[in-house]
Amino acid sequence: MSNHIAVDVGGTQMRAACYPSDSPTPIKIDRISTQVPYATPLERLVKLIKAVTPDGGDVAAIAVAVPGPTNPYKGIIYTAPNIPGWQNLAIGPILEEKFGIPVRLGNDANLAALGEWQFGAGKGHHHLIYMTVSTGIGTGILVDDRLLLGVDGLAAELGHVTVLPDGPMCGCGKRGHLEAVASGTAIAHWVEEQIAAGKPSSLPSKQTFTARDVGMAAAQGDPLSVEALARAGAFLGQALAGFIHTFNPSIIIIGGGVSLSGDFLMKPIQDCLKEMVISPQYLEGFVLGTSALADEAGLLGALALARSISE
Amino acid sequence: MSNHIAVDVGGTQMRAACYPSDSPTPIKIDRISTQVPYATPLERLVKLIKAVTPDGGDVAAIAVAVPGPTNPYKGIIYTAPNIPGWQNLAIGPILEEKFGIPVRLGNDANLAALGEWQFGAGKGHHHLIYMTVSTGIGTGILVDDRLLLGVDGLAAELGHVTVLPDGPMCGCGKRGHLEAVASGTAIAHWVEEQIAAGKPSSLPSKQTFTARDVGMAAAQGDPLSVEALARAGAFLGQALAGFIHTFNPSIIIIGGGVSLSGDFLMKPIQDCLKEMVISPQYLEGFVLGTSALADEAGLLGALALARSISE
Repeated sequence: MSNHIAVDVGGTQMRAACYPSDSPTPIKIDRISTQVPYATPLERLVKLIKAVTPDGGDVAAIAVAVPGPTNPYKGIIYTAPNIPGWQNLAIGPILEEKFGIPVRLGNDANLAALGEWQFGAGKGHHHLIYMTVSTGIGTGILVDDRLLLGVDGLAAELGHVTVLPDGPMCGCGKRGHLEAVASGTAIAHWVEEQIAAGKPSSLPSKQTFTARDVGMAAAQGDPLSVEALARAGAFLGQALAGFIHTFNPSIIIIGGGVSLSGDFLMKPIQDCLKEMVISPQYLEGFVLGTSALADEAGLLGALALARSISE
Repeated sequence: MSNHIAVDVGGTQMRAACYPSDSPTPIKIDRISTQVPYATPLERLVKLIKAVTPDGGDVAAIAVAVPGPTNPYKGIIYTAPNIPGWQNLAIGPILEEKFGIPVRLGNDANLAALGEWQFGAGKGHHHLIYMTVSTGIGTGILVDDRLLLGVDGLAAELGHVTVLPDGPMCGCGKRGHLEAVASGTAIAHWVEEQIAAGKPSSLPSKQTFTARDVGMAAAQGDPLSVEALARAGAFLGQALAGFIHTFNPSIIIIGGGVSLSGDFLMKPIQDCLKEMVISPQYLEGFVLGTSALADEAGLLGALALARSISE
């Protein structure tokens, strides 16, 4: 009965926890800043893993959720936009050498999907799509109880599907992607543009704000903010209808900060699905849900991955 | 060493073949019309299976490719637009009762994908998308060597993904789907519209024609026909870029009559992929190919399915 270590690495901080084999409650948990002077993010990661390693060192495997495209077969992170130096870095093999136990790497959105599937809103579902709507849009997909990874682990980038040809520029440099019209960044930017064009709003003009501000303004009755969330919801609904035809899932789970806007976002998605899905059979027994694990999804997904190694 | 029977049912005719366990060359093959007076399509199917059953009756399993959404777990065809009476019909269980051996049903595009994967252009690939561009657009997807089916077998309907919001009406009754702008029907219809609006073409005005006519006119240098295929190719490329981000496949195989237009269609797709895919990693080692099995794909996919039952 060995322990497993799960790590969730973000651009700002990294968190790790050590779990016994029979519970999702950690026996040790810690968090540290990712980027500090005089230490690389990789050195910080090693330090953090050591900090949560139990006395006696009884650990069967380690899994790490990382914020960027990853080759999970090789344990390589291709690129992490928010972590300098993490380019084609073989984190998995490096940590295996260091700790002498199996180490697996996973993209954070993929592992959040795995977390929701094993411990959260997706329990009991075999065909699941998880989408976090936050600064960007990240997704993870389970097909027949298995993560959809593709030939090099680059699958499930549903934020980079075109929903509006010639639409706004996406963070990736291409136009009209779902992320470019429905992410938190896109929602806030659209509201800023509308205010600049003279539309009335309770939000201040000539200021930048976040999707969280938009969500709060919507809750207080600001029509422009309500419209912004409905617009994003309609784009999400259009894209999700396509993903329903593609995957025929029994559940789609929406997570991330923007999902906290609740019905202002979820109702337009739901309406759009009803209107756009080609046969009611796709929606029989189908669940459109929100994340149960919130910020814990990545860490618990890493736990699920670590446990799957030594099964 | 038992034989397997594969059947490919279309609206006009149904074909069946009996294969030995070690070869894709049939020992018996036959075809009959699907719809005749005084016999139901199901009775025709039973008759055809009997016709290819070898003397001695040594058959391990039967698989049937059917033209419509199907629940492969239950052996039910939900609907077959071109076959009257095939609505929620439990063909699998009915045939199992009749013949006393395992029978599996599969959607024809799914089984064509399986055929290309096992015997055709997709041999050796583990992550594959097959798309037939014909009257409509049908698709089948293999993820990790397994058909993507979804919770009720309704997955892989990539023709019904929105590529042009508020675009032309699709056969399914929704707007702007890939099938509505890039199928053979859509290509021919667009050319007809352009001619009606006064655009010059070597194709006749005030007549209906097919995508095959458009392909032949393009080969003879008709600029409008070349433009029509390039336009369809651009929509296909946009959609396929999204599917590449979704599935990270190592191959996409284009089949169906429209793919016979060759570079008039394939070159615009290829160009569009290069422009729209978010990272060159997705295209490293990636193959955009055409069908190797053509009209045999469905039948050979049914063979692959039948053999997988008794493995």
